[in-house]
Amino acid sequence: MRVVVDGMGGDNSPQAIVEGCVLAQKEYGVEIIITGPKEKIEAELAKHEYNKNAITIVDAREVISTNEAPVKALKTKKDSSLVKALDLVKNGEADAVVSAGSTGAFLAGCTLIVKRIKGISRPALAPVMPGKNGPFMIIDAGANADCKPQYLTQFAQMGKVYFENVLGVNNPTVGLVNIGEEEEKGNDLTKAAYQLLKEEDINFIGNIEPRDIPKGKVNVLVCDGFVGNTVLKMYEGVAETILSEIKTEIMGSFVTKIGGVLLTPVFKRFKKHYDYKEYGGAAFLGVNGICIKAHGSSDARALKNAIKVSKVYYDTGVLEKMKSAFAEEKDTLKIDE
Amino acid sequence: MRVVVDGMGGDNSPQAIVEGCVLAQKEYGVEIIITGPKEKIEAELAKHEYNKNAITIVDAREVISTNEAPVKALKTKKDSSLVKALDLVKNGEADAVVSAGSTGAFLAGCTLIVKRIKGISRPALAPVMPGKNGPFMIIDAGANADCKPQYLTQFAQMGKVYFENVLGVNNPTVGLVNIGEEEEKGNDLTKAAYQLLKEEDINFIGNIEPRDIPKGKVNVLVCDGFVGNTVLKMYEGVAETILSEIKTEIMGSFVTKIGGVLLTPVFKRFKKHYDYKEYGGAAFLGVNGICIKAHGSSDARALKNAIKVSKVYYDTGVLEKMKSAFAEEKDTLKIDE
Repeated sequence: MRVVVDGMGGDNSPQAIVEGCVLAQKEYGVEIIITGPKEKIEAELAKHEYNKNAITIVDAREVISTNEAPVKALKTKKDSSLVKALDLVKNGEADAVVSAGSTGAFLAGCTLIVKRIKGISRPALAPVMPGKNGPFMIIDAGANADCKPQYLTQFAQMGKVYFENVLGVNNPTVGLVNIGEEEEKGNDLTKAAYQLLKEEDINFIGNIEPRDIPKGKVNVLVCDGFVGNTVLKMYEGVAETILSEIKTEIMGSFVTKIGGVLLTPVFKRFKKHYDYKEYGGAAFLGVNGICIKAHGSSDARALKNAIKVSKVYYDTGVLEKMKSAFAEEKDTLKIDE
Repeated sequence: MRVVVDGMGGDNSPQAIVEGCVLAQKEYGVEIIITGPKEKIEAELAKHEYNKNAITIVDAREVISTNEAPVKALKTKKDSSLVKALDLVKNGEADAVVSAGSTGAFLAGCTLIVKRIKGISRPALAPVMPGKNGPFMIIDAGANADCKPQYLTQFAQMGKVYFENVLGVNNPTVGLVNIGEEEEKGNDLTKAAYQLLKEEDINFIGNIEPRDIPKGKVNVLVCDGFVGNTVLKMYEGVAETILSEIKTEIMGSFVTKIGGVLLTPVFKRFKKHYDYKEYGGAAFLGVNGICIKAHGSSDARALKNAIKVSKVYYDTGVLEKMKSAFAEEKDTLKIDE
């Protein structure tokens, strides 16, 4: 398997990105192509021992930053590390792409360059998160800020195929993120989506309130991209704030410091459990290629884990399954272009 | 000051409600009227020592449950504890109402019976939450699942008046909850609302990403009721799950149990800080009366604190300030009915 990694995407690029590639190559035995200014990437690679046959560079002279308008940047910066990486996937020279750069540019680039799977209205970002009782997926976590009800049924179908194959859960439960448990609760979108989801060939368990999301009792959580991104960022933000506040409190007295030392293994396990870096990147489902968005602040370990996500995606053959699922169903789905 | 409390609202009614009323009467010296079946409320009151001149009962034979359609329930159950309570505020026989019952029925009842302040399009639920650097308000936290951009500017204005007077923060900062920091990010609603908020006479600091909400750096967070309710419930859910998981981990070994004992004061302070019960109820702003929604699972302490919120609301004269703020501004506001 060949993975192309956007060498200049992310807050810690290119150092952490290159280091993550070296780690992933060793651990998973994949071939890796890094895009970016050849001399910069080479200088980073020179800091590590690595397999020169398995990690190569494709020169790219431009960088797309997070504050650029995505579509414009994609069109004017053809020689950017991102566009070059996407081109390799489009042309079949790489089996997957991983980027920690601008989310907007990455998602727009995947849709415009790698293109959608036939039958899919809107591709969706689908991170898998740690829950108390097991991992859960949020789909869409930010690709489509405004959604029509039909998009949500496709998100549910894509989430089902991915969760079933990648996480090995047969007939995963699907819930609609909503502000009430009852069928008639919510906004215009969720009320309409509920009626459509009921009719789909999925294990639909109804509405799930945000309060219950961290429990991880439902496998696939369907929502529009605005709500999904809010859920994702609240999850990260609240966990981070609580853990940092506990740390501050522990440092407050001698006795609590000792208590903190005794609890070090607890906090370590805990931090690891809630650390997005352990979970790697989020798959962008619905495009005709394996496209993984790593967290913007990815360190080497997070980037390595994002490459792992691309490998599992590849090894389980989910992309082909996704294509055939929508090829068969396209006549019954209400496609809205 | 006279507060009427819906004696039959909430998961723990009437026991916890009545106990909370007794506690609040003692601590704040307010007069309290409890609505509900006279004999039931009397039986609960008999369990406590209380000032019989300061706590009275208004008999109400019906109860509105959380799974009833709000408007229909309000219209058919005129003799319910909720409708009777709202009638007392409407008729000026009580200065404030507190209910831990059905949120939908309470909000609809406040709007239909107590009525809106002149100039307000949509009243909004505005809980004040604990943040790392201080409390913050979410407005709207669930009253309006679908919003127009103009509603959000009114939420901002109402939030400003309340925060300024009740929390004593001069010219509080106002942020728009959004999934990106930049002006052009978000969905159709937030993009349009951003442009309107820029023009308002408020201390608008732009978009705030959900990840930064728990830090409490922005005083008033404006959003539609669906997003606000999601933020509120994620906050509660993630905090609850993390604290319960840490507890489980601590019980895992002898050493960590000792660590846990040494950290007891830390966890206690911490739990108190994140406990919604400490923060009492959420004010429903924009209606022509002091209407406080207590958490559905309120215990006696939470109910007592909700009564405290109503007292501060009353003592600071915010309702009159709110009315005059909108009376003056009504010509410039784009009212949408």
